[in-house]
Amino acid sequence: MSQATAFAPATVANVAVGFDCLGFAVEAPGDRVTVERVSGGGVEIASIEGVDADRLPLDPARNSASVGLVKMAADLGDGIGFRMRVRKGIPLSSGLGGSAASAVAAVVAANALLDPPLPRERLLDYALLGEQAASGSAHADNAAPCLYGGLVLVRAADPPEVVTLPVPASLRCVLVHPHARLDTRASRAALPPSVALADHVRQAARLAAFVAGCHRGDLALIARSLEDVLIEPHRAPLIHGFASVKRAALEAGALGCSISGSGPSVFALCDGDAAAERAHGAMLEAFARADERADGWISPIRSDGARIES
Amino acid sequence: MSQATAFAPATVANVAVGFDCLGFAVEAPGDRVTVERVSGGGVEIASIEGVDADRLPLDPARNSASVGLVKMAADLGDGIGFRMRVRKGIPLSSGLGGSAASAVAAVVAANALLDPPLPRERLLDYALLGEQAASGSAHADNAAPCLYGGLVLVRAADPPEVVTLPVPASLRCVLVHPHARLDTRASRAALPPSVALADHVRQAARLAAFVAGCHRGDLALIARSLEDVLIEPHRAPLIHGFASVKRAALEAGALGCSISGSGPSVFALCDGDAAAERAHGAMLEAFARADERADGWISPIRSDGARIES
Repeated sequence: MSQATAFAPATVANVAVGFDCLGFAVEAPGDRVTVERVSGGGVEIASIEGVDADRLPLDPARNSASVGLVKMAADLGDGIGFRMRVRKGIPLSSGLGGSAASAVAAVVAANALLDPPLPRERLLDYALLGEQAASGSAHADNAAPCLYGGLVLVRAADPPEVVTLPVPASLRCVLVHPHARLDTRASRAALPPSVALADHVRQAARLAAFVAGCHRGDLALIARSLEDVLIEPHRAPLIHGFASVKRAALEAGALGCSISGSGPSVFALCDGDAAAERAHGAMLEAFARADERADGWISPIRSDGARIES
Repeated sequence: MSQATAFAPATVANVAVGFDCLGFAVEAPGDRVTVERVSGGGVEIASIEGVDADRLPLDPARNSASVGLVKMAADLGDGIGFRMRVRKGIPLSSGLGGSAASAVAAVVAANALLDPPLPRERLLDYALLGEQAASGSAHADNAAPCLYGGLVLVRAADPPEVVTLPVPASLRCVLVHPHARLDTRASRAALPPSVALADHVRQAARLAAFVAGCHRGDLALIARSLEDVLIEPHRAPLIHGFASVKRAALEAGALGCSISGSGPSVFALCDGDAAAERAHGAMLEAFARADERADGWISPIRSDGARIES
């Protein structure tokens, strides 16, 4: 194979209950990266197309899509180099894991050109280098579900250890993306450095109950658990219209609704397609009432992660 | 029935990963309370026997075993009163949930004398009044597993909502109780009022992974998750010999080892009877080397909670 194209999906990190340790993959949107092997080592970004393409740097040392690949090429040695073309489907600074998706797609595509290929855990390490460059921290709650698919708990950060959780079959994710941008670093700067011990207990218990709910397929327990007392209160003011969008989702029957990753996108989890359609409509309408342009997606939790398309 | 005797088991709260929201019941030790109905309302403590009996007050308003029963009698009205005899099997201020056990045994025994009996959730509310009196806070992480049995996650504190988690069949608990006493309030005062956000994430992820491990029956995942970065470091210095006891348990093959409740008792979770015997011996030996008298118990996680014995 002389070149390979990989698709990597958008991901919802934090998932209300699991700040920096929980995330899941969706069907769409996603990023595509085509990689071909070149000799002489190094990485070249030949082109970036698609959503927000003009805002992304072609310098491979500065683009989160290529940072991991640069290290991978260096580690491989033997003059192995890569030329990559990026097609962005995930908006920039949207809270949908776009930097993780590009980084994952790049290393997955490059890996398909290796014989033998590297194990997936190594690919996660490389993809996380891109996350580090993009957001200043290397939490695997986007990159891991993007690479592996499914709903993923990051049990330990360094080295990353992930636990894939079972997902109730009827679970649907509604994503609504306001066109405002919110820089990951700014969104992180809004958070307090510490939390009250009692609030830690409340939030940890909710995360634990959410995990139990997923294992039991208990959507009512999942709904009761999907509450963020730590992070959402600090980030909600950064997202114009958030309170009314959340209220609209819950009134439309969503199991829960919170900020996707560091925002400004908002996700809701719903029981079944009809409920998801209702929440989707209500959330878009609420953003419209707040004079905020937005678009959205409905998707099951995607069970597989990044994949080779050609 | 004119009188009833209830047994209520010791419980291990916190369980390393779930401060104030996780607990389980063991087979032994436990407290027994015999209750008979008397007319004229109110509650009388006729006698307290057994371990540390001389240190407990006979005033029903001041004894955590009777505080809940006093409220229960008042709520029942109609001149319903109770006389109770307490036999303590759980040492005082040991971190083994003794105050919860006495309170639970009292309300369970009294409930057996009512027609119709109250639902179990109401009994939990009454038992928690005793916890509030004993420790200054009403976390259900002792009372709920004591009443319901099993490994229990307290999803929400007020009103208490509990989720019973599955327990791998081979799991055994080793309890080692040094004869030193550690007052619950003093143990709580050693804790910082807040925790770093990054430490919250680390601890919450471990709790979530522990819950996933229980559902999957994955003892290796349970072992990797049984780590307390928040509480144990602050309380360990209050327990003479703790570090060497923990090291001994882990070297003997325990899956994990930490402080039971607010201490000073130490628990270890083990895979099977033989591993539990090894850890038990090693932990007692380590306390002995630290010149600390101690005794211990080995038990499966008890699947049923408090029960009527006669």
